[in-house]
Amino acid sequence: MSALLAASVNGNACHDPEVVCSLLDRALHYGDGLFETMLIARGKVVEFDRHHARLLQGCRLLGIDPPESARLVMEAEGIVGGRSDAILKLIVSRPHGGRGYRGPENGEGRSIFLLYEHSPTPGPRPAIVRWCTTRMARNATLAGIKHLNRLEQVLAQREWWDASIDEGLMLDTEGEVISGTASNVFLVANGALCTPDLRYCGVHGTMRARVLEKARELNLQVIERGLWPEDFEDATEAFVTNAIRGIRPVVQLGDRRWKPGPYARDLAMSLEI
Amino acid sequence: MSALLAASVNGNACHDPEVVCSLLDRALHYGDGLFETMLIARGKVVEFDRHHARLLQGCRLLGIDPPESARLVMEAEGIVGGRSDAILKLIVSRPHGGRGYRGPENGEGRSIFLLYEHSPTPGPRPAIVRWCTTRMARNATLAGIKHLNRLEQVLAQREWWDASIDEGLMLDTEGEVISGTASNVFLVANGALCTPDLRYCGVHGTMRARVLEKARELNLQVIERGLWPEDFEDATEAFVTNAIRGIRPVVQLGDRRWKPGPYARDLAMSLEI
Repeated sequence: MSALLAASVNGNACHDPEVVCSLLDRALHYGDGLFETMLIARGKVVEFDRHHARLLQGCRLLGIDPPESARLVMEAEGIVGGRSDAILKLIVSRPHGGRGYRGPENGEGRSIFLLYEHSPTPGPRPAIVRWCTTRMARNATLAGIKHLNRLEQVLAQREWWDASIDEGLMLDTEGEVISGTASNVFLVANGALCTPDLRYCGVHGTMRARVLEKARELNLQVIERGLWPEDFEDATEAFVTNAIRGIRPVVQLGDRRWKPGPYARDLAMSLEI
Repeated sequence: MSALLAASVNGNACHDPEVVCSLLDRALHYGDGLFETMLIARGKVVEFDRHHARLLQGCRLLGIDPPESARLVMEAEGIVGGRSDAILKLIVSRPHGGRGYRGPENGEGRSIFLLYEHSPTPGPRPAIVRWCTTRMARNATLAGIKHLNRLEQVLAQREWWDASIDEGLMLDTEGEVISGTASNVFLVANGALCTPDLRYCGVHGTMRARVLEKARELNLQVIERGLWPEDFEDATEAFVTNAIRGIRPVVQLGDRRWKPGPYARDLAMSLEI
C-alpha cells in the first residue's frame, strides 16, 4: 500500500488531504471525469505526452473542456517537487453544476493531483494471474478512455485477497478477454503478438501503446483482435502491462504455467523498462 | 437548478461545502459507492424505508458494510432540521484504502448528505420526452442498484439543452428501452401496464416499486418485460416516474403524442402524489 505524499486541487496545495475536495465535485457524484496514473522516474513524468493525449481524447468524448496543458504541467511539477520516484495520479472532473446528471454546458475541467510513494523494482517481475468472474459491460461510447466509472474493476479485484496473486484477467459480458483489472494483456501464438482490440470496453493503456509501437518497429507480427480464454491455452507466452509496473511476464494463469518468454524480455529491453 | 442548503460528512455539518470531502474518497476515484435522492415533504423523508432497503441491497452487492441505520436516520434528521420541503441526497462510499481499485477488506461505508432547495409543484405535470442516442451497457452484476457509475446518464442528458424537453428515454446496447435518464418508464398496451424488467441495467426506482404495488392492489394487469421503441407506437398511454417528481404523463415522445391518460391519473391519485 503506497502512502500519500501530497495533493493539490486546481493547483492549490492541500496539506490535509482529508478535507480538501469539494462536495460538489461531479467525480464524487457520478464518476463524471477521467484519470491518469503516471510513473515519476528521475523526477519526470514518464511518457507524459501519451497520458496527456489519452486525457484529451477522454475529455473530447465526455464533452469536458480539458484543463489548459501548461497549467497541468505546472501543477504536476509543483506537486512532484524534487522527488525522484513516485506515482502521480491526476483526476479531471467536469466542473460543478447544479443538482442532477447534466452538469454545466461548458467550462474547464477541475484537476486533482495526488502524489504517492513508490519504490521501483528493477527488471521485469513475473506475475501470477487468475481469472475473474466479474465481467466488463460493453459500451463502445466509453471504450478505451480512462474514465472514473470503475466499479467493475473494483469488484473484480475484490474477488481475491491472496497477496501471492498479482493480477486478475477480466472477460466482457460476451466472454471475450479484455484486460487485467489494472493492466492490458498480451499473448504470443503461432509467433504473433496478440492483444484484445478493446472496441467495446477496456482502457487503451499507455504501456500497451508503447509495446505495440515497439513490436511493429521490431517487425514482429502484431494482431489486435477479440481474444477468448481458450486462446491462452495455446499461447506460448503471455504478459501484462501498465504504466507503473511496465511489462510483467505471466508465469501462471489458473492451471496454465509458462516460463518467462522472449517477447516480454526483448520488448522490455528495447523499451528500457 | 436547486440551491444547496446544507451538507454533512459522516454526520459532521459542513458549513462550506466547497472544502469538505476527503480527497481519498473512493466515490471520487472510482464511483465506488451508492446514492439515494429522497424527497422531503412535511419535514419527513418520503418512503425512507424503500430508499434504505435499496441502499442496503446495493451495499450487499458491492460488498460495502452499510452505515448503521440509526446513524443514517440521525444524520438525515440533523441536516433536514425543521425544513418542510427539500431534496435530500445521500452518498455512501466504500471506506478509504490505499491506492488502487481493491479498497479495504471491510469497514462501514462513509455517508455524505446534501440538502437541496425544492419547491413542490401540485398535481401531475405532463412531460415532453425524447429518445437519447447514448446507450446503457448491460451488466447484470450492477443492474437495479443506484451505484455511482453514472456517466451514461450524464452523457444522455447532455444530448439536449432545450428546456422544454423534460426527459430522455434510453435504450441499452441491444436496443431495449430501459428507462429515462433519471426516471423509470411505463406504458399501457392492450389494457396492461408494462415496464422494462431491468434485468441487465437500469435502476429499481422507489416510485416504480410503489406504482407496481399499487397497480397490483388495484387489480390492473402488470407486465415487467423487455420493451422496444416500437412498443411505444402502439401504447395508449405512457408515463415516467421518480421519487422527486412522482408520476408524469408523457404527452410527447418524438413524433408520438398522447393526452394525459387514466392510468397515470388514477395511480397518482391512489398514491396521493
